[in-house]
Amino acid sequence: MTRTVIRGGLVVTAAEELHADVLIEDGRIAALAATGSSAAEAWSADTVIEAGGHYVIPGGVDVHTHMELPFGGTAASDTFETGTRAAAWGGTTTIVDFAVQPVGGSLREGLDAWHAKAEGNCAIDYGFHTIVSDVNESVLKEMDSLVDSGESTSFKLFMAYPGVFYSDDGRILRAMQRGAVNGGLIMMHAENGIAIDVLVEQALAAGKTDPRYHGEVRRELLEAEATHRAIKLAQVAGSPLYVVHVSAASALAELARARDDGLNVFGETCPQYLFLSTDNLAEPDFEGAKYVCSTPLRPREHQEALWRGLRTNDLQVVSTDHCPFCFAGQKELGRGDFSKIPNGLPGVENRMDLLHQAVVDGRISRRRWIEIACATPARMFGLYPRKGTIAPGADADLVIYDPAAVQTVSAATHHMNVDYSAYEGRQLTGRARTVLSRGTVVLDDGRWLGRAGHGAFLRRDTCQYLT
Amino acid sequence: MTRTVIRGGLVVTAAEELHADVLIEDGRIAALAATGSSAAEAWSADTVIEAGGHYVIPGGVDVHTHMELPFGGTAASDTFETGTRAAAWGGTTTIVDFAVQPVGGSLREGLDAWHAKAEGNCAIDYGFHTIVSDVNESVLKEMDSLVDSGESTSFKLFMAYPGVFYSDDGRILRAMQRGAVNGGLIMMHAENGIAIDVLVEQALAAGKTDPRYHGEVRRELLEAEATHRAIKLAQVAGSPLYVVHVSAASALAELARARDDGLNVFGETCPQYLFLSTDNLAEPDFEGAKYVCSTPLRPREHQEALWRGLRTNDLQVVSTDHCPFCFAGQKELGRGDFSKIPNGLPGVENRMDLLHQAVVDGRISRRRWIEIACATPARMFGLYPRKGTIAPGADADLVIYDPAAVQTVSAATHHMNVDYSAYEGRQLTGRARTVLSRGTVVLDDGRWLGRAGHGAFLRRDTCQYLT
Amino acid sequence: MTRTVIRGGLVVTAAEELHADVLIEDGRIAALAATGSSAAEAWSADTVIEAGGHYVIPGGVDVHTHMELPFGGTAASDTFETGTRAAAWGGTTTIVDFAVQPVGGSLREGLDAWHAKAEGNCAIDYGFHTIVSDVNESVLKEMDSLVDSGESTSFKLFMAYPGVFYSDDGRILRAMQRGAVNGGLIMMHAENGIAIDVLVEQALAAGKTDPRYHGEVRRELLEAEATHRAIKLAQVAGSPLYVVHVSAASALAELARARDDGLNVFGETCPQYLFLSTDNLAEPDFEGAKYVCSTPLRPREHQEALWRGLRTNDLQVVSTDHCPFCFAGQKELGRGDFSKIPNGLPGVENRMDLLHQAVVDGRISRRRWIEIACATPARMFGLYPRKGTIAPGADADLVIYDPAAVQTVSAATHHMNVDYSAYEGRQLTGRARTVLSRGTVVLDDGRWLGRAGHGAFLRRDTCQYLT
Amino acid sequence: MTRTVIRGGLVVTAAEELHADVLIEDGRIAALAATGSSAAEAWSADTVIEAGGHYVIPGGVDVHTHMELPFGGTAASDTFETGTRAAAWGGTTTIVDFAVQPVGGSLREGLDAWHAKAEGNCAIDYGFHTIVSDVNESVLKEMDSLVDSGESTSFKLFMAYPGVFYSDDGRILRAMQRGAVNGGLIMMHAENGIAIDVLVEQALAAGKTDPRYHGEVRRELLEAEATHRAIKLAQVAGSPLYVVHVSAASALAELARARDDGLNVFGETCPQYLFLSTDNLAEPDFEGAKYVCSTPLRPREHQEALWRGLRTNDLQVVSTDHCPFCFAGQKELGRGDFSKIPNGLPGVENRMDLLHQAVVDGRISRRRWIEIACATPARMFGLYPRKGTIAPGADADLVIYDPAAVQTVSAATHHMNVDYSAYEGRQLTGRARTVLSRGTVVLDDGRWLGRAGHGAFLRRDTCQYLT
Repeated sequence: MTRTVIRGGLVVTAAEELHADVLIEDGRIAALAATGSSAAEAWSADTVIEAGGHYVIPGGVDVHTHMELPFGGTAASDTFETGTRAAAWGGTTTIVDFAVQPVGGSLREGLDAWHAKAEGNCAIDYGFHTIVSDVNESVLKEMDSLVDSGESTSFKLFMAYPGVFYSDDGRILRAMQRGAVNGGLIMMHAENGIAIDVLVEQALAAGKTDPRYHGEVRRELLEAEATHRAIKLAQVAGSPLYVVHVSAASALAELARARDDGLNVFGETCPQYLFLSTDNLAEPDFEGAKYVCSTPLRPREHQEALWRGLRTNDLQVVSTDHCPFCFAGQKELGRGDFSKIPNGLPGVENRMDLLHQAVVDGRISRRRWIEIACATPARMFGLYPRKGTIAPGADADLVIYDPAAVQTVSAATHHMNVDYSAYEGRQLTGRARTVLSRGTVVLDDGRWLGRAGHGAFLRRDTCQYLT
Repeated sequence: MTRTVIRGGLVVTAAEELHADVLIEDGRIAALAATGSSAAEAWSADTVIEAGGHYVIPGGVDVHTHMELPFGGTAASDTFETGTRAAAWGGTTTIVDFAVQPVGGSLREGLDAWHAKAEGNCAIDYGFHTIVSDVNESVLKEMDSLVDSGESTSFKLFMAYPGVFYSDDGRILRAMQRGAVNGGLIMMHAENGIAIDVLVEQALAAGKTDPRYHGEVRRELLEAEATHRAIKLAQVAGSPLYVVHVSAASALAELARARDDGLNVFGETCPQYLFLSTDNLAEPDFEGAKYVCSTPLRPREHQEALWRGLRTNDLQVVSTDHCPFCFAGQKELGRGDFSKIPNGLPGVENRMDLLHQAVVDGRISRRRWIEIACATPARMFGLYPRKGTIAPGADADLVIYDPAAVQTVSAATHHMNVDYSAYEGRQLTGRARTVLSRGTVVLDDGRWLGRAGHGAFLRRDTCQYLT
Repeated sequence: MTRTVIRGGLVVTAAEELHADVLIEDGRIAALAATGSSAAEAWSADTVIEAGGHYVIPGGVDVHTHMELPFGGTAASDTFETGTRAAAWGGTTTIVDFAVQPVGGSLREGLDAWHAKAEGNCAIDYGFHTIVSDVNESVLKEMDSLVDSGESTSFKLFMAYPGVFYSDDGRILRAMQRGAVNGGLIMMHAENGIAIDVLVEQALAAGKTDPRYHGEVRRELLEAEATHRAIKLAQVAGSPLYVVHVSAASALAELARARDDGLNVFGETCPQYLFLSTDNLAEPDFEGAKYVCSTPLRPREHQEALWRGLRTNDLQVVSTDHCPFCFAGQKELGRGDFSKIPNGLPGVENRMDLLHQAVVDGRISRRRWIEIACATPARMFGLYPRKGTIAPGADADLVIYDPAAVQTVSAATHHMNVDYSAYEGRQLTGRARTVLSRGTVVLDDGRWLGRAGHGAFLRRDTCQYLT
Repeated sequence: MTRTVIRGGLVVTAAEELHADVLIEDGRIAALAATGSSAAEAWSADTVIEAGGHYVIPGGVDVHTHMELPFGGTAASDTFETGTRAAAWGGTTTIVDFAVQPVGGSLREGLDAWHAKAEGNCAIDYGFHTIVSDVNESVLKEMDSLVDSGESTSFKLFMAYPGVFYSDDGRILRAMQRGAVNGGLIMMHAENGIAIDVLVEQALAAGKTDPRYHGEVRRELLEAEATHRAIKLAQVAGSPLYVVHVSAASALAELARARDDGLNVFGETCPQYLFLSTDNLAEPDFEGAKYVCSTPLRPREHQEALWRGLRTNDLQVVSTDHCPFCFAGQKELGRGDFSKIPNGLPGVENRMDLLHQAVVDGRISRRRWIEIACATPARMFGLYPRKGTIAPGADADLVIYDPAAVQTVSAATHHMNVDYSAYEGRQLTGRARTVLSRGTVVLDDGRWLGRAGHGAFLRRDTCQYLT
């Protein structure tokens, strides 16, 4: 039996802040004891990690990533190997990525393809949601068995991207009805893609081809509309709903309204919506393309509403929607036609630190930081308490976090496989010093100690966050 | 050093459900370890408490009691001795009672009087809020020093009871402004007492003297109005607000609206509003008097809204407003004039079990049960993590709870000093088997092992629940 | 010059109640004068109609009828001849019917077909909206010219009936954008037909074939959803919106919310939603089929919300959606499959009287009766002040209304060409005694004096109701 | 019999725009006839007024003026003679002023005093509301008889000005209950004066003495709060409510919310809130004092909300709250202490023109102009259709309005008895050319033809605006 003790840190979870030592046995947390207590003093260990002056936090859980995602004739530039390593550098020890049902194919085929990409390559544990491109009877049955086996207990549908991932309201309803029965959680990309495509066509016809028009045509009202519609369809189906990457204040207002009515409706936002804005999309020389993602960045005043939503729990999760494309050769595909810019931003490495900066800035408390970045994502997608907290029995996915370290974000120093940073030059206070994945130190003091293949596939329970 | 180990229970806190053993050293929780782990097995202890098949939960925290409260020429029938003992029988190990500023006197005088009643008599730990009857310059200064010393970090004001506890909006505003500066939390009895008194007078003049008219004149709209007004005054003052004993759906709606706007506005409800209704107030032969309290019981349909509010966290706390008056001799003072019925219900012993019944009935989860009855009350009033959770460093206020025990509530068997039960004959599933206060077993398997004077006065931090 | 004077009635318009005489010259109102004034006394006339003890009101304007509409392999049973005659019997002197763009055809073809049906056959004046089945570039251009010429200044789109009239959100958006420019008013059938069709299929598969399931599958939430969506699309397009046949309280709430935000969003309801309910749909022996229409009848409690909406002007218009199918041979097409029941109810003859009953019952004022049934419909669709009011210059479409006459509604006595009445046996107070169309008496004291072909086609202005 | 004909104008009422001639017989409107109709041509008249190219509108009805009001040791500078003459210059032909119940006295005494001031001095017709300073049993009985006789059918209460006009919530409730029975309409000054007085005291203590602090201490939230409270009290009493001088967007939102619930809740705003802002209050050299009124001017962005409220009928009336104090000697009383500045602005002469400017600017339609300035005020306070419209039987209070005339507002040219204009230098399009009061021309083309004493006291019906 391997025993590791982490001594003298401030253990921060979603619920508590404790001066406690943590005992790890064989990759799981065996015990917590008050620092200095005779119980803690009695522990012997193979390894002792000193955490004085640091936080001991659960490893981050990022439930929205797209490693190696094919998109618009190219593919996201991070592989599962590079992407999960970058995640760990940033203090994230679990990701849930999206396996895509191929058009005309089965969910199984999608999952097989994604297993093939990930297996043996990941530095940290990983799971899969399934993107359902085509809701039909056979797919509905596959959903049942995937939930049963825990291979994928959540399913993403799109109200955007007609002709690609788009599902009409009838298919959405059918999938939600099935989820209401089998416990699978429906995740929704909520934008009215049919209407947006009209506006895209009109913008291009009018010569509006720059990246900033990406933000203009994907109207806030059309995110709010789709969010409302998804909520009503879920209400008809009697199912919960998880709306991904909420960016608009008015979409958030729809979620708040539904939650006031007691519905199991949940919302995720991402760092880019909290820290970036249409100002970035308007950067000259096609630099705005770096910030093209959907839902799009919004005017700066939306940020305040999103922070409020995070504080009042109208938003429950911050994930990254990590989907990196290099500026050179990839983002550039859309020069002269913003609709051809691959959609997505890199961020899996930056999330925990950006959110800690929000703690430093007084926007959220330390406990709330852990709740939105670790505990709730794990609960929402059936990984709790294995992931997302520090408690006896949980996996020893832990981060010794230095709250005083100062870093400057840059593509020159980050570990994601992409040639730019959306946060280039931003100075942040706080950084992961030591990262453990199931008890194994994968990062320590700037040295990478992990390995591809350490990360294991995670079977998941159904959503544990329902009221 | 005294060491106690609780073995084999399911530890339930607001955040987790764990199969863990709990080690107590000298009255505080020293460690948690996964049941069966070598860390747990290594513990030696003076006492081992077996908790297999039981929950191990934090002792209940009831932040709204009125032991020995003088009211309308009589006084609440539970002393601190009888009341705190009854609390412990019901699995509650902390109360926060209200010291009343005497008219024309200081807060100090009120606290001195309440210390005299409580000291040496309590079976469990206790703290004091202060009821401010008269806001003036000298009282505002006293507030500062009480918050500084932690003797009382919360202050209750009344929009009801003109001529007794009533404060006008100017006094309320001044107190809130002071709270915004010194961190003291303003608690509000939110009913428009000025308008209600008109309706009381008109009802009595019309010969409407039965207990049920108590519920009719204290109009729901006048609770909603006062709640809204308190929120706006708090907004002007820039202070948080805690509204006590919310009973009306429309008052709750005002809280929800304010919280959607990101305000630090909190609401408490009580078991009587969740389980009783105007049907009880209408019981014949003056029996309705047993259920006279303010805010009053509401029509049955309000219960559903309150449960929803508890689920969606628009209500954060369930306390009892325990204020018992015997039917014989006390409630009877109001025969022929409902306005003379002493206001209040017994309940300190029943709260934890009634709320567990809601778990059994599927209304709330186990974790939410602990959150609204233990963790959040402690956080709200500056007692966390000392009280309200199970974590290294916390006081060992613990309950070994038998989730399968069946009991029938009755005045014949309860331990509160009052001649009736508001829940007479109600069958409940779940009961505290063993109760520990700071590591000392005070109740075990139906035997009372506690003693008056064990309970200590609690100095408190300021509110720890602010976003 | 022909001169008619109406003497001694109480002239009721949307704005006033006046004791005034009305002078008609050559089919138009020439003057109003206070009854008994020397001005009134001075009038000479060919015809004097005594109206003492009666109301003199504008003829009703019914802006939603479907004469001879082909639907599901059959056709609405009232021709323009029978339908307009029945309208006049009921005090309605203007209808606006819907010309349907044939699939694959032009708006022009639709209008030509409808002109052919109506011309020379109508007893009262009539206009046409256009149902747009297929929004494309050529249709958008046709919209421009129809608005210019006044032949049709309003265009109806369907979010229901996929495969028949259904337009997707992109087409809706394009039509609204065009309306925003050319002034054409978009009318919307707001039900999520894509989702409803799933529920229809599931219901039939489950053996739920009776008429009442028509009401169950067309879920209220799916009317509210579509209403919200239509509003957001209109907001994106910058166009006004008129939602037809609002039946659900929650759909009305969406309109109210939009209007509070200052949007030009309007709602129409119909007598069937105000006076009938799902109780009717549940009538045994397939009788429920008589009440099958879309949007469907709702549970009784929705009626109260609709009346409130009419009082507070969140609903502006009551029209009939008159679309009669005989029970024998037509409604019966849907025995064993509710989805095959032709959708529609007869009502063009009953509207004015049903709404007057609401005046008698104290639900609305006399002026509001005229406003929702005459003045606002005329304004909304560009017919004011020619129609809908009593003022110098207006067409002399007038009704001498006996507010005390008592009638019992029955298919045995009504004049619509349909074998049942949706209001069979209902006793109403109030009835048209004398009806004038452009100065010509077409009905008097139970004698029909009108003729097919008297009614003229109405070119219309654009919406006159915008704020 | 005197007969006057107004020829060739565009008659604009709240309901219609007509090319019609108007016949006046003995001071009342006898008939309207289409211009050029034989009916119109047949009229003979003593006087013919040519109105070609002009509007013919109802004289303005200003239901909120304070002529000669004693306030803070001084008195409003317009007498009934000067004030009503100025009103007529501005196209207003009816005012309703406020008789004040003296402290310790009866409503009767107040009315007697105000009759004494007005009788024989007014150029136009006038009525009285009553300000109730002290609600008691005898006053409630007086209310009954004043409503019965029509001498005063509306009663104003104050939630502001403690120690002067202030009524507590109990008194307000009693008055509303009485109004619910006798039909008297309660008008409310809705500001939380108790809380405001605390802020005033604190501001002055902090040396904040300039006029702009008047706007800062009278917090928007405290207008919204009081508005909400008044609504809830009215709901408890079952009475309608008319809120005077609404200035805050959030107060308006409370009205909108109540109206969505179907309550008979009405709101008035004033030109100063539509055209002026806190920018004016901040004018240097104590000039801000010119704009001191209560409720106070708000930041500019509130204007947009008020205009929206006027368009959507959440606000029904625009009156002036005309209460002029000269800058020299009166406003100056508050140098060094903003709380001593007499509250009030001059405006009775400017209202019709300012609102016409809003027509010119496209903010409201012509008909809405008449509705909010003439028709609805008359209806609201029981003067319809005698005042506020142009219809047979109505008083011939008419204005021939030149929509193209351009004027520059200035104290140098206005007719109000006050040494400054709140709108000094503002250029307006539109002006009254000819004004008739009960058929008598009082103003024509810049010549004053009226006389003190022409104006008669108006007995009034109860509110005619209830749904």
